[in-house]
Amino acid sequence: MNPFTFYTPTKYQFGPGVVDAVGETLAGMGWQRVLLVYGKGSAVRSGLIARVKDLLAQAGIKVVELPGVRPNPEIASVREGVGIAREFDVQGILAVGGGSVIDASKAVAMATPYDGDAWDFFCGKATAGECLPIAVVLTIPAAGSEGSSSCVISNDELGAKNGTNGDSFRPKLAFLDPELTYSLPPYQTAAGVTDMIAHVCERSFSGVGAVRITDYIAYGLVRTLIEMAPRALANPNDYEARANIMWAGTLAHNDIAGCGRGKVAGRVGGWESHALEHAMSAYDTSITHGAGLAVILPAWMRYVWREDPQRFLDFGRGVFGLEPAGDSEADIEQAVTATIDALSAFFASIGMPSKLGEFGLTREVIPTLASSVIAVKGEPFGCFKPLARADIEAIYESAF
Amino acid sequence: MNPFTFYTPTKYQFGPGVVDAVGETLAGMGWQRVLLVYGKGSAVRSGLIARVKDLLAQAGIKVVELPGVRPNPEIASVREGVGIAREFDVQGILAVGGGSVIDASKAVAMATPYDGDAWDFFCGKATAGECLPIAVVLTIPAAGSEGSSSCVISNDELGAKNGTNGDSFRPKLAFLDPELTYSLPPYQTAAGVTDMIAHVCERSFSGVGAVRITDYIAYGLVRTLIEMAPRALANPNDYEARANIMWAGTLAHNDIAGCGRGKVAGRVGGWESHALEHAMSAYDTSITHGAGLAVILPAWMRYVWREDPQRFLDFGRGVFGLEPAGDSEADIEQAVTATIDALSAFFASIGMPSKLGEFGLTREVIPTLASSVIAVKGEPFGCFKPLARADIEAIYESAF
Repeated sequence: MNPFTFYTPTKYQFGPGVVDAVGETLAGMGWQRVLLVYGKGSAVRSGLIARVKDLLAQAGIKVVELPGVRPNPEIASVREGVGIAREFDVQGILAVGGGSVIDASKAVAMATPYDGDAWDFFCGKATAGECLPIAVVLTIPAAGSEGSSSCVISNDELGAKNGTNGDSFRPKLAFLDPELTYSLPPYQTAAGVTDMIAHVCERSFSGVGAVRITDYIAYGLVRTLIEMAPRALANPNDYEARANIMWAGTLAHNDIAGCGRGKVAGRVGGWESHALEHAMSAYDTSITHGAGLAVILPAWMRYVWREDPQRFLDFGRGVFGLEPAGDSEADIEQAVTATIDALSAFFASIGMPSKLGEFGLTREVIPTLASSVIAVKGEPFGCFKPLARADIEAIYESAF
Repeated sequence: MNPFTFYTPTKYQFGPGVVDAVGETLAGMGWQRVLLVYGKGSAVRSGLIARVKDLLAQAGIKVVELPGVRPNPEIASVREGVGIAREFDVQGILAVGGGSVIDASKAVAMATPYDGDAWDFFCGKATAGECLPIAVVLTIPAAGSEGSSSCVISNDELGAKNGTNGDSFRPKLAFLDPELTYSLPPYQTAAGVTDMIAHVCERSFSGVGAVRITDYIAYGLVRTLIEMAPRALANPNDYEARANIMWAGTLAHNDIAGCGRGKVAGRVGGWESHALEHAMSAYDTSITHGAGLAVILPAWMRYVWREDPQRFLDFGRGVFGLEPAGDSEADIEQAVTATIDALSAFFASIGMPSKLGEFGLTREVIPTLASSVIAVKGEPFGCFKPLARADIEAIYESAF
């Protein structure tokens, strides 16, 4: 159990109808002028944005808006938000949406009080100091941004998609109403669940051995998701299923599943699968992050497990109840393979792809994707097993 | 999964030697004058208090002291602390110790800015508003007060031991160094572990059915403790064991093990075993809280399980891997009994008592204890099964 800092100051209000309190709660925090950030899609169509604006108005809060934030939010949108936040001197930001909307809000929160360009935080030129406070109404459980210290922003001009981490832009407040997720399409529900499982796995396979307490929490989160995803897909209005998934998404990425699992100080895990997937969805923006992970995470596991078979046996035991038949190398390989097969089969069972070809990709893109990974992460990179170009290419190759 | 609020703003610094940063960290928070609160015992003898004072002095922090806080901290000690905190206009409180020292610090933190008597918070006359900020150096993992919203104070004059809950006095910062617990005597280590398991069980048997994600986390905490306690007892310097126990103590009581398990708004669970034990250790202050729980928790379970056998089967499955042989009533009773037996046997295996007679108590005290419970909790009380006087007396009776 390695040293760690754990700090999750977000206050979560969880349950049906919690959004009704958004106006009075923000007013109670002294917010009189708010920047409302949201996307292009369902939150507008469902009437949620109109409802939130009503609630804010009833509480006497003035609203300025940054609408139309796209998936993989772009720095231009952030700059626009900073301009509005400054012009109207808002006291806080209310993000209504999923990870993209929340990440855009985080970037606006850090850049508004900063005397320089917002991209500076994403190219190593600046570190977030005091930020505008953020509140969240979550509509898409997946990225875990409502409680996390991470923020990822794209820069189309530079062809870059970079992240930064910091405690100062963790949301102060998050309203989590599982009923708001009833209308999520099956593919998005499944991709969200896959992303959550990947967030846990990146931490569980961080290159550090067993940390009993954290491992048990991690396996409990994965088991919850494996039990609940099929229920939510079979009956989108299954409250228990939606609620378990929503809360699991938060805990999968608020760092509770990584305590004591840091190989080096700072971030837990090498985030190898995330890096390989980011290169894919940057290359083809029609690839949903979670769907890409459903292919790459098992492929990465099959490539690296021999570095520490015990970690995989432990995962198989804790999540799937799988035990090796004996202590021989063949028994261990059989049990590890069965574990990875079970995870991959689960992803397929909820409608996620299993092979890169399903995205329309061909083997010719492998060198391009590998270069893209190396440009962001360096070479070699990774905590569980250092990955050089040949390794990265072999993992992609194995996923066709 | 019932509605809940989850808010744990404490920043945890976990690992060997984290205490070395206490001076610079508090100075960085702008603390120039600090009230140092500690107990009578080991923290002084071990040199920890002297080390902390050195570190504060090196950081230019002026220290005033409230030493000698006793187990079951008394209101007179709190009032003394308030006087000192006001006289020296401290910016914060540093608690070095276990639950008693931290609870005394919480009471001083809420009463110092309050225009009235400190006991008001413990007799329903006042609710904590803004509090002095608290930092903690934890030396006894058990009560979980380093991250919890609870505070229990005794009033000898009134013969009362009352609690209050509030987010405003949760510690801002907690230094958790497992090495500081190497010197804990076996009995105190075991009693601490028992208290932690009880904190989880009070939430798991809250009168609400399955909440998968929270249940899995809860069972993971209990499994961790059952695996690690024997290791810590066999080898007091087993870092992994001490670290797992320390972090489990925090998570057992910071509310993560209760999310969605509240039967009514507010506190999760009826805290029936805690109430029955508090009456015992108030009657005979030589009874260690955790040791009392080792007797009362299983006795309570045997008395109430028929209210919801499925909850007990689920606990037995998640913690001990026990499955009923079939669906018949006899099969279920057998599996539930085996589960409670296993928990009780674990407590005995780590040196905890199994019967009330081991404390020197006799059956004659039962009416007195029951009256004491009712005086604090009312009648009937409890969430899993409402307990009237006859029930309370029957549980005590069964524990002889």
